[in-house]
Amino acid sequence: MTDTQTIADGTNSNVVVSVDAMGGDKGPGVIIAGLLRAVHTHSNIRFLVHGPQAVLAPLIDKHNLEEFCTIVHAERTVSMDDKPSQVMRHGKGTSMWSAVTSVKQKEADACVSCGNTGALMAISMVRLRKLAGINRPAIAILWPSFGPNGSNVMLDVGADVRADESDLLQFALMGASYSRNGFAVKRPRVGLLNVGTEEHKGRAELKAAHDLIKESAESGQFEFVGFVEGGDIPSDRVDVIVTDGFTGNVALKTAEGTASFIGTALRQSFKHNLLAKLSAILAYGPLSRLKRTTDPRRVNGGVFLGLNGTVVKSHGAADATGVAAAVGLAYRLGSAKFSTKLAARVASVNGFAEDREEDGN
Amino acid sequence: MTDTQTIADGTNSNVVVSVDAMGGDKGPGVIIAGLLRAVHTHSNIRFLVHGPQAVLAPLIDKHNLEEFCTIVHAERTVSMDDKPSQVMRHGKGTSMWSAVTSVKQKEADACVSCGNTGALMAISMVRLRKLAGINRPAIAILWPSFGPNGSNVMLDVGADVRADESDLLQFALMGASYSRNGFAVKRPRVGLLNVGTEEHKGRAELKAAHDLIKESAESGQFEFVGFVEGGDIPSDRVDVIVTDGFTGNVALKTAEGTASFIGTALRQSFKHNLLAKLSAILAYGPLSRLKRTTDPRRVNGGVFLGLNGTVVKSHGAADATGVAAAVGLAYRLGSAKFSTKLAARVASVNGFAEDREEDGN
Repeated sequence: MTDTQTIADGTNSNVVVSVDAMGGDKGPGVIIAGLLRAVHTHSNIRFLVHGPQAVLAPLIDKHNLEEFCTIVHAERTVSMDDKPSQVMRHGKGTSMWSAVTSVKQKEADACVSCGNTGALMAISMVRLRKLAGINRPAIAILWPSFGPNGSNVMLDVGADVRADESDLLQFALMGASYSRNGFAVKRPRVGLLNVGTEEHKGRAELKAAHDLIKESAESGQFEFVGFVEGGDIPSDRVDVIVTDGFTGNVALKTAEGTASFIGTALRQSFKHNLLAKLSAILAYGPLSRLKRTTDPRRVNGGVFLGLNGTVVKSHGAADATGVAAAVGLAYRLGSAKFSTKLAARVASVNGFAEDREEDGN
Repeated sequence: MTDTQTIADGTNSNVVVSVDAMGGDKGPGVIIAGLLRAVHTHSNIRFLVHGPQAVLAPLIDKHNLEEFCTIVHAERTVSMDDKPSQVMRHGKGTSMWSAVTSVKQKEADACVSCGNTGALMAISMVRLRKLAGINRPAIAILWPSFGPNGSNVMLDVGADVRADESDLLQFALMGASYSRNGFAVKRPRVGLLNVGTEEHKGRAELKAAHDLIKESAESGQFEFVGFVEGGDIPSDRVDVIVTDGFTGNVALKTAEGTASFIGTALRQSFKHNLLAKLSAILAYGPLSRLKRTTDPRRVNGGVFLGLNGTVVKSHGAADATGVAAAVGLAYRLGSAKFSTKLAARVASVNGFAEDREEDGN
């Protein structure tokens, strides 16, 4: 492991991404194929690839990735059905546990897994621990949008949690920092998800959070646009959308369901009769362009915020393109030293408030 | 009003719909044009049209609708900015107040308004009162779906309310009754919206509601499919989706935003260059078919459930097609005597539980 440590220590400019090669629905072949794509884009990327040596070595060999990859042998795999509580206690020896541990031991700058979300969060909590001052870590995702980056940040989408006003404030500050470091948005526009944009609307904790976030905008180096609605999530009004994990998770899955509904209807309408089939051939260009704009694989990668280290959760069903997108995100955050900057911001007086470094966390 | 009363009394087979002609974003012209379309589909429909006589008479005249319409003069209009609490106290004399009052006085079988949702709910609560036994009325909408009717029922989407387990049970029972009476689904499949389909997931009130709804499925004459996720809302797994008003409202607006995002991307991709523009002409058939399948106007109309009378809320920006859809829904519910049946079901022992009428409420 000495070589890799040298790399991660920053003694040269390589960025090391720790990869759980076993968690995805499509197996390790797709994940290694994703690494190949990432190497084409980022020549100074290096990988610690976690999983059974006997499975991974031939795949890495096949793609001629030996000089980019170091295999870290891990015999066991976390399955999609494993309970987070079980994995937390008995997960040692799995590729997921091993991949997160490389970040803890500072051998890697960030970690990527396509595995079980609950298990990955549980292992990350146990191994990396919450940042001091953070009550609830959050999962931030990228949402295809009309904004300048082609995607907005939304958090939390972590499902089970109910967030109070101080949690929502922390989400706003972490989301702004993520937007700044991951996507070079100098002064992110932050919105709080609600059922109307009027200040009197919504639940009590949302009104309290509205005021807290508003007060912190100046010191947190972001712009607060106030309440936003579901329809604003893909808009250019906002860069970061803040909500509790339950609402965020429902919104995300509803949007995926809607996109899939429209996609299916589109395919059916182009198969309706011979003329329709013919026009589908001629419309190949525009339809491919549509797919590129709205393709969720393009923006694959949920980031766990609020831990001592950067963990990127890729979609379980990601293909090589999706894996490359998640790995690219981990690379970008690793290069930006996001984890260190976020920790510094959190550690600063008044929960971020007094931190005004020139470069911005 | 004597003629109309005769009609509504059921001494002939006409169905009377009370229409607030002034509430929509596009003015009364679009609403009267919508009535014309509804008349073409339902020859025994009759209207009480509420608004200023001087404005409405020429519009009704223009479309030759005199024999179908009775104008009920109301000078004032509720605007989209009016606060519900204000309207509740000072709304008398508005077209919205007048339209709801016709249902209260049994002059009409159902009411339709394109106006301010909060104000319409406030007036409906004040004028019609909650059904005995109902804690929270709910707004149920139709969601374009792969199901046999082309749409599923979702409730509540009423924004501000937080629902506990007994509210969610009432939503399930009312939603099932609505699906049965509005869309002839004999044994509606009811799902409870959550962040996962496993029974251990989600908030405490959702677990409690899961068990309550499960127990009531047999007596309520519906099938309970358990927890569903956001992606299931447009699916053929379920006919009725139950959730609290906050989550439902966010999901609805997120889906609208997603559909609009994809629609814009689709239009842009077909304008990209000359070949794309040409292919758009050839793809006219399939693209029109897509629009028909996913067109939200086709399923326009939110229904307030849990009041002594049927009130349909049309989208504020509805055009004539949308207005006709909402009016058609009011007609269908009026014909089915939905309001009476729902009241009987609610009044039955154990909150619906013992009601096993042959025809099903």
